[in-house]
Amino acid sequence: MAKAPSKARGTRVRRQPDRGRYDRATIDAILDAALVAHVGYVDGGRPVVVPTLHARVGDELLIHGSAASRTLRALGGGIPVCVTVTLLDGLVLARSAFHHSVNYRSVVLYGEARAVEQPDEKLAALRALADRMVPGRWDSVRPPDRRELRATSILVLPIDQASAKMRSGPPSDDERDLDRDVWAGVLPLPVTVGEPRPDHLAEGLDVPCHVRDWQRPGLAGQDA
Amino acid sequence: MAKAPSKARGTRVRRQPDRGRYDRATIDAILDAALVAHVGYVDGGRPVVVPTLHARVGDELLIHGSAASRTLRALGGGIPVCVTVTLLDGLVLARSAFHHSVNYRSVVLYGEARAVEQPDEKLAALRALADRMVPGRWDSVRPPDRRELRATSILVLPIDQASAKMRSGPPSDDERDLDRDVWAGVLPLPVTVGEPRPDHLAEGLDVPCHVRDWQRPGLAGQDA
Repeated sequence: MAKAPSKARGTRVRRQPDRGRYDRATIDAILDAALVAHVGYVDGGRPVVVPTLHARVGDELLIHGSAASRTLRALGGGIPVCVTVTLLDGLVLARSAFHHSVNYRSVVLYGEARAVEQPDEKLAALRALADRMVPGRWDSVRPPDRRELRATSILVLPIDQASAKMRSGPPSDDERDLDRDVWAGVLPLPVTVGEPRPDHLAEGLDVPCHVRDWQRPGLAGQDA
Repeated sequence: MAKAPSKARGTRVRRQPDRGRYDRATIDAILDAALVAHVGYVDGGRPVVVPTLHARVGDELLIHGSAASRTLRALGGGIPVCVTVTLLDGLVLARSAFHHSVNYRSVVLYGEARAVEQPDEKLAALRALADRMVPGRWDSVRPPDRRELRATSILVLPIDQASAKMRSGPPSDDERDLDRDVWAGVLPLPVTVGEPRPDHLAEGLDVPCHVRDWQRPGLAGQDA
């Protein structure tokens, strides 16, 4: 297991350290597969956690920052955030209550978030967010006008204090429980893609490839 | 839309307030449908967000508290937490980049978490957590022994400072964009239940009903 340097306290997985991973390939794959991130920040001494959309672009994570950006503006600079993404892959049903668990992949990322201010950088960030959500989408829709761009708030933070944690495979039962008359195993919970629901479209407008063939790499945990 | 009293600042939905809901039926349904919660707390002035399993029991939320409990013990009492659960129901593809969105249901819950200390209360909490994950599971597995009970950390917090936020339905395009030659609509992303994967079971041990018929109420957003 390759271990990349981590810069700060808090980045090492302390609980069940055998589940920790620190290589960027693992971290990036989880960030890219997750559609929703949970952003935590401190507001008046109190923790706040908001769900948001995100996109990794190289060594940075972009997040829609409407909630935290108010705090950010109030402080006039970067604010410490913790961004956590979690993919649930399955339920792990053991022979004992104690060893029940879930199969999952998660990343915890610490950093100072800054607001994207320049219109050009903001436009590029919005494009990245749209194309992460649905690759190829940006080029087929109307781009934001100046007012929409102003109304959008995006935060960016470097990916340099990150760790991944994951569990996969069957339950880890105690030796003493293996002969019990209990069904044990994994119940996979894949996210699937439903039938696209068109919204009052003109006749003859087919479902485009970028919608029909949409899939998220690693979204459904194949190894659950 | 019924609005239950909310006790503290921060509980009202400030962004897109038309998406906010405060009635307990809505809040409870989302808490009960979600399998993973994200718990935020402040550690040394810094935000920390960890994924965890949870179970609502009446007016309280139980969470596996291994990470936060260290902080809790250090402080010797309750700590302010923010627990957020999010169900992603679908991608909302609009005719403009600006109106792209997701259909989702989320709850943000603030409170002071306390550790469950008494063995009896802890046992009851573990039972609730197991039976929330897989209803009926507890009675078919080996219950925790004294050592396992000591090794388990559970936090509890009251559900009295909570708000829900949700979006459903088609994209909210501008009037000016409706005639564009762009496919618009919703791509539903239901969570499904895969085939149970047994773990080296004795022959003749069938998949029990509580596994075969497992489903989470409202897990897959039918109204995405």
